[in-house]
Amino acid sequence: MIKTEYFSLKFIDKHLVFLDQTQLPFHEKYIQTTSYERVAEAIEKLEIRGAPAIGLAAAYAVVFSQENGYSKSAFNKAVGRLAKTRPTAVNLFWALNSMQKVFASLAPSEDSYSFLLHKAHSLYNDDVAMCDAIAVNGASLIKKGSVVLTHCNTGRLAMGGGGTALYVIKQAFDAGNIKHVFVDETRPLLQGARLTAFELTHYGIPFSVITDSMAAHIIKTEKVNLVITGADRITSNGDSANKIGTYSLAILCKYHGIPFYIAAPSSTIDVALPSGDKIVIEERGAKEVFQIQNTLLTDSSFPARNPSFDVTPSELITGIITESGVFDYPYKFV
Amino acid sequence: MIKTEYFSLKFIDKHLVFLDQTQLPFHEKYIQTTSYERVAEAIEKLEIRGAPAIGLAAAYAVVFSQENGYSKSAFNKAVGRLAKTRPTAVNLFWALNSMQKVFASLAPSEDSYSFLLHKAHSLYNDDVAMCDAIAVNGASLIKKGSVVLTHCNTGRLAMGGGGTALYVIKQAFDAGNIKHVFVDETRPLLQGARLTAFELTHYGIPFSVITDSMAAHIIKTEKVNLVITGADRITSNGDSANKIGTYSLAILCKYHGIPFYIAAPSSTIDVALPSGDKIVIEERGAKEVFQIQNTLLTDSSFPARNPSFDVTPSELITGIITESGVFDYPYKFV
Repeated sequence: MIKTEYFSLKFIDKHLVFLDQTQLPFHEKYIQTTSYERVAEAIEKLEIRGAPAIGLAAAYAVVFSQENGYSKSAFNKAVGRLAKTRPTAVNLFWALNSMQKVFASLAPSEDSYSFLLHKAHSLYNDDVAMCDAIAVNGASLIKKGSVVLTHCNTGRLAMGGGGTALYVIKQAFDAGNIKHVFVDETRPLLQGARLTAFELTHYGIPFSVITDSMAAHIIKTEKVNLVITGADRITSNGDSANKIGTYSLAILCKYHGIPFYIAAPSSTIDVALPSGDKIVIEERGAKEVFQIQNTLLTDSSFPARNPSFDVTPSELITGIITESGVFDYPYKFV
Repeated sequence: MIKTEYFSLKFIDKHLVFLDQTQLPFHEKYIQTTSYERVAEAIEKLEIRGAPAIGLAAAYAVVFSQENGYSKSAFNKAVGRLAKTRPTAVNLFWALNSMQKVFASLAPSEDSYSFLLHKAHSLYNDDVAMCDAIAVNGASLIKKGSVVLTHCNTGRLAMGGGGTALYVIKQAFDAGNIKHVFVDETRPLLQGARLTAFELTHYGIPFSVITDSMAAHIIKTEKVNLVITGADRITSNGDSANKIGTYSLAILCKYHGIPFYIAAPSSTIDVALPSGDKIVIEERGAKEVFQIQNTLLTDSSFPARNPSFDVTPSELITGIITESGVFDYPYKFV
């Protein structure tokens, strides 16, 4: 069922081709488009998700605004549209900003499409190299026989490259150091149960899916050695926004005396923000909480909350693993 | 949609009538039976759930074994069958034990059916009175303007009477002291999103359902004042088994410096067990984690864990609220 060479997104023959992750693990359906509007929708509908993948998708998407030649207004319109898709992940703004710098350097006579495409490819290739470096840096922290717990999806599906936290786990597994991986299902959208389980199956890494509520019990009774997750935005003091449920895991790690690591490319670090209380947390609709596919879980008129992210204060984070190395508390990113 | 006088179970006209809680909040379907086997199945399938309600249902169920007159073998067969339904809640064994004592006191010439029924009614009425006392004792701890978080369902649906933790909340609401209730959806079976939300709607208490993974974020950002849950078994040192996810909440309360309370009838206290590591934790099938109604959440061949309960160590429990009063750490139940 799982194809060998699944990927989150790739630029192929003038199209952005992306895997519709809302249909995983049931269907591996790739969508191809040359429309930045379609890419924006894909990000909003979570067909493309994962902070780094969102940034790369947006980078390719703005290229399409120049299909009919240099147009500043078309470029700005595309950037404006894409910037509105999701507020929390900094990689999106970082990628759009990179594209804006390239565009600002161009004269109207220049081939804006190819310059922007070149930059998007460069960001993509950097992402692949960053993932490799993160995996090596992170795996050095994982001892033989480790039982690891992770949350959400931070693998190849979330990136252009191999992933962040999940790629660290893969690297450690390849080194013979992973005994078992526990995967939080990650409500409401089940990225753990659907996507991380899909990737771990592909890699042949032994794992069990658990509900998020089981993490404390599993950490204690299964002697979990460490928890590792990704991040969507890290402030200069190390406070980290990540998928809702991460903050809880960090507290559980502190209580159980085990390390809590974050693995993320340094593009996730937003040095302009001094601390986590400044991060905008996306709140999505109640429907996501109460409906899975076409099945209502409960009476949909009940009130619900749906913050998509939470902020883990830096003092709970044992180490932040980036492509440049592993940082530890107290963090002072500049 | 919500009927005024819903109930979990009642003995009416020689039948046990119970609400099939697996169909809530969509359908209020009552089932009536005179078969202890059907009651055993209802407990196993969670049509009847909640530690006290399970005990009461089992008590009524063994009465049916005597429909054809005094029979020790029929009685023992019924008790044996019911004792096998669910291993964690002590109330089940406590109720069966109460019925066994009555049966042991009878001569074969006596009307075992009516003696046992009288005892089952007595347990039921005691349960109602206990709930009332728990509610009063617990509500005294809740100050005006409180924001409360709860887990699973501990209301009228879980009991013969009004409930434990949720009935405390109702009592505090009636006293004008509840500002808002956050309800963990309580994966995998969604007792919070389905049952507690149903009861809170019935009572007109303002609430929001959250995924279990949101609790830490909500406790911090919504300034939750206290967390209160029920318990399925409490050992003599105060360690408490309750619905999976409770242990996590207790840790979150400690980290955030807010009280964590348990409300339970004293029949939940198993003085024969010295500490929580002796409690048998029921592990149910992976299907419950991966399927809701007829919808598969992910590839059902993925491995999963499904412990139904966890154990919260007594040092994390600010107070244990029973019908006899509120106890606090260190606990020494005898």
